[in-house]
Amino acid sequence: MAILDYPSDRPRIVIVGAGFGGLNAAKQLGGDECDVVVIDRVNHHLFQPLLYQVATAALSPADISYPIRAVLRNLKRTRTLLGEVVGIDTTLRRVYLHEDEIPYDYLILAAGARHSYFGNKEWERIAPGLKGLDDALEIRRRILLAFEKAEREVEPARRKALLTFVVIGGGPTGVELAGAIAEIAKQVMVDDFRSIDPTDTRVILAEGGPRILATFPEELSKKAESALRDKGVWVWANTLATEITEDRVAFKGADPVATRTVLWAAGVQASPLGRMLGAATDRAGRVPVEPDLSVKGLPNVFVIGDLASLNGKDGKPLPGVAPVAMQQGRHVGKNILRAIEGKPLLPFEYRDKGNLATIGRAAAIADLGFVRLSGFVAWMAWLFVHVLYLIGFRNRAAVMLNWTWAYLKMQRGARLIYGDVERLVEPSEHSAGHEAEPEPASQHR
Amino acid sequence: MAILDYPSDRPRIVIVGAGFGGLNAAKQLGGDECDVVVIDRVNHHLFQPLLYQVATAALSPADISYPIRAVLRNLKRTRTLLGEVVGIDTTLRRVYLHEDEIPYDYLILAAGARHSYFGNKEWERIAPGLKGLDDALEIRRRILLAFEKAEREVEPARRKALLTFVVIGGGPTGVELAGAIAEIAKQVMVDDFRSIDPTDTRVILAEGGPRILATFPEELSKKAESALRDKGVWVWANTLATEITEDRVAFKGADPVATRTVLWAAGVQASPLGRMLGAATDRAGRVPVEPDLSVKGLPNVFVIGDLASLNGKDGKPLPGVAPVAMQQGRHVGKNILRAIEGKPLLPFEYRDKGNLATIGRAAAIADLGFVRLSGFVAWMAWLFVHVLYLIGFRNRAAVMLNWTWAYLKMQRGARLIYGDVERLVEPSEHSAGHEAEPEPASQHR
Repeated sequence: MAILDYPSDRPRIVIVGAGFGGLNAAKQLGGDECDVVVIDRVNHHLFQPLLYQVATAALSPADISYPIRAVLRNLKRTRTLLGEVVGIDTTLRRVYLHEDEIPYDYLILAAGARHSYFGNKEWERIAPGLKGLDDALEIRRRILLAFEKAEREVEPARRKALLTFVVIGGGPTGVELAGAIAEIAKQVMVDDFRSIDPTDTRVILAEGGPRILATFPEELSKKAESALRDKGVWVWANTLATEITEDRVAFKGADPVATRTVLWAAGVQASPLGRMLGAATDRAGRVPVEPDLSVKGLPNVFVIGDLASLNGKDGKPLPGVAPVAMQQGRHVGKNILRAIEGKPLLPFEYRDKGNLATIGRAAAIADLGFVRLSGFVAWMAWLFVHVLYLIGFRNRAAVMLNWTWAYLKMQRGARLIYGDVERLVEPSEHSAGHEAEPEPASQHR
Repeated sequence: MAILDYPSDRPRIVIVGAGFGGLNAAKQLGGDECDVVVIDRVNHHLFQPLLYQVATAALSPADISYPIRAVLRNLKRTRTLLGEVVGIDTTLRRVYLHEDEIPYDYLILAAGARHSYFGNKEWERIAPGLKGLDDALEIRRRILLAFEKAEREVEPARRKALLTFVVIGGGPTGVELAGAIAEIAKQVMVDDFRSIDPTDTRVILAEGGPRILATFPEELSKKAESALRDKGVWVWANTLATEITEDRVAFKGADPVATRTVLWAAGVQASPLGRMLGAATDRAGRVPVEPDLSVKGLPNVFVIGDLASLNGKDGKPLPGVAPVAMQQGRHVGKNILRAIEGKPLLPFEYRDKGNLATIGRAAAIADLGFVRLSGFVAWMAWLFVHVLYLIGFRNRAAVMLNWTWAYLKMQRGARLIYGDVERLVEPSEHSAGHEAEPEPASQHR
C-alpha cells in the first residue's frame, strides 16, 4: 500500500467522481490556491443525458465522453487518478484505493448514483440499467442481438418473445429508451431482415405510478404519452413489475409478458461511498448535507450531486439532474476557497432553468417555467442545449454529423455488437449444451 | 437443431464470412439467379486496414465498421445470419451453426485468419493480436491503462516497465501500432500527466527477420525504419521473442526487456473452417485451391481470401491483403453464376495495384509498381485509398472529421477505456488479494 502524498505547502482537495459535479468543482478549484486530486473509476467524463443514444446505436461512446485528464490538462495543480475508492477515514483524513491511499485536507464526494432494484438484486443480470458506457454497450448489444436471434428463430412464440421489449420505469430514461427502440424497429431496421418483420416489434413501457414523466406538469406528460403511442410504444401506467425472469415479466396491474429483453429505468441508489463516511444516509443511500453542502460533524467533507440529499427553497428534495450537480460543484469549489481564506461558507441555492425530455426523433417536451413546449420546437431546444453542453469541439461536430446522418438517412451508424459470439447463445441453453466442446465436423458425417 | 431451409426454386449459395472476400462475392451474386445466405460471427463488416487506428484511440469502432445486413439490404434474395459455423458436411452439403443447420448448393468459405503464436498459445493472453473490434478495444485498453497505472506507480523500476511497450512483428500491423503508440506518448498525452513524463515512453518494435516490412522493396523498408526512429521507436531486427511473461519479454538476439504491455503482430493462422472441409490444408491452416478457386474434389466449394492458398503468376503465394480477397470474391461470384448456367469456370488472376503501409501521422510508404513513394505524399495516397474504400457516407465523413481533428489538435478523441475497473488490478495481485471482499472502511479507523 503506497501513500500518494505529493509534497506541497498548499491544502489538498480530493474530489471523488468526475461527473458534472466533480468536474465543475475541480474547475472552480483549478487556480493556484490549492492542490486538487480528482479520482474516478473510469478514465472519461460522461455526458450522461445522451447515454441512451449510445445504448440505442445512434452515437458512439467517444461522441459523448472525453478523457478526464484531457479536460483538466491545463490546470497545472490538478492531478487525475484512475482508481476505485474502497474506504474513507475521516479522522486520519485519508481516501483508500485498492492499492494506494491519499491524504486530504478537504474532501468532495461526487460519486453519483447507480440503479436500484428495490431489493431484487437478481433482476440486475436480466434487466440491466443505464448509468455508464459499459451499461450502454450491454443494452445496445441486447437490443441488436434480440433482432438477430429472432431472424434465426423458427418457432413463432419464441420469435414473438424476442421481438418484445419491456422497459421498466417511465422517467426520462425509460421514455427515451422506449421511444428509441420503437424507432429502430419501425424505421431503421425495416428493410434489413428477411424472416422477420421488424415492425412487428412490441415495445412496452411499464410505469408503476399513475403517469409517465411524473416530474413534469401533467399536460406535458400526456403529450409525451401520446407521442410515444404514435411511435408504437405501449404505455402501461399503474403497472408494477413483480417478477422478472429470463423469458417473462410478471406485473401487478397487467398480464405477464413473454420477453427476452428487459431494461431497467425504475430506481436509483446512491454510490456506497456515502456510507463509508460513517455519517447518516437516507434510504436511497444519499448523504443529507448542510445548506453549505458540508456533512454534519465533518466540516471539511462535502457531498454534491446525486449522492447528496438537500431540500430546495420549496421544501422538496432537489432532483437528481445535471444542472443541480453542476451548480453544486461550482458552489462547493467557491466555499472551499472561502474556507481556505478563513471566510464563512455560503448556503447553496439552486437556480432551476427548466426541465427537458426527448421522446425520439423530432419530439420532446420542455418545461422552462415561463413556457411549456412540446413536439418539434421542444426537440430543437433539447438538441441545442445538449450539443451546447458537450465538451470539446470534436464531440460537438461528431454528434451533429451523426445526428444529421441519422435524421436524413434514418440510419443508426453505431449498430455494432461487440463481445464473444458465445454470448449469442441463451444462458439456459448455454449451461445445457455448451459446457462440452462443440461437436466436431466429422460427427455430422 | 432447426434446419434453416428457405424454400426456393433457385440454387442456394452459403457464404461464410463477411469480410472483403465474402461481401464482394455476395454483391456479385446479388441478382435474381440464386439465393444467398451470408453467415458471420459478428454483425458488422470491418474495414480491417484501419483497425490499428481504433486500437490506438484515433477512431471509434463505428467509424470503420458497418452492419452487414445494412450493406446487403437492397439484395432482396440475400439473407444475413449472425452465427458461428461449427461444422461442415460436404457430402450432405450442410453448414452447422451452434443451434441450426443450413443446406447449400454452393459454399464459399471466406472466414479469414487470426493470429498465430507458433505453438506458444499461453502468449495469447499476455500479448493480444489485432484482428477484430474486440481485439482493438482490448489493445486500446491496455495501452491507456499502462499510462494510468504508471501515473499512480511510485516505484521507479515498475514505472519504467509500465512505460515500455513491445510490439512483436515488423509487418504492416506492427509498424502501424508501434508508430501510433509513439505518437500517443510523445505528442498526444504530453501535458496530461503530473507524476510521469509520457515522453519517457519506450516503444520497441521487434522483428525476427533481417528487416521490417519485408514484403516491400528494401529501399522503402529502410525509409520506414528511419521514419519510425524519428518518432522515437526502437526498431530491433533479427530479434526473436523466446519467452513472454506478465512482466518481461526474452529475446534471441537482444537482452530481455521489462514490460507490462506486449502486442502481437507476428503471425497469422487461417480460420479452423478450412480443416472442417476434410480437405488438405497447409501449415498455416490455409486451403490450397484450384485456379478457379474451388477445392480439389469439391467442385461446389470455394475458398477465398486469407483462408485460401494460391500462387500468383510469379509462382509466389498471393499475399493476405484486402485487394486479393476482394478480387477473389468478385471472381468466385462470377464463376458460380457460370456454373449455374452450365458454363466452364475461369481461372483467377490477381491484378496487383500496389502496396501501402503507414508509419503514423503524415508518413507512409507506397510501392505502386511503376513508382515508389514515401513520406507525406505516400501518406496522402494511403489516406485517399483508405477513405475511398470505407463503406457508407457517414463513415467516410466521420473518419475525415476525426482525422482532421486529430491532426490539427494532436488529440485522439477515442481515448476511452471500457470495462470493469477490477481489471485495472494486475492479474497476479488480483489472485493474491482480491478474491476476498475489499476492506470495509471501518478497518481503516
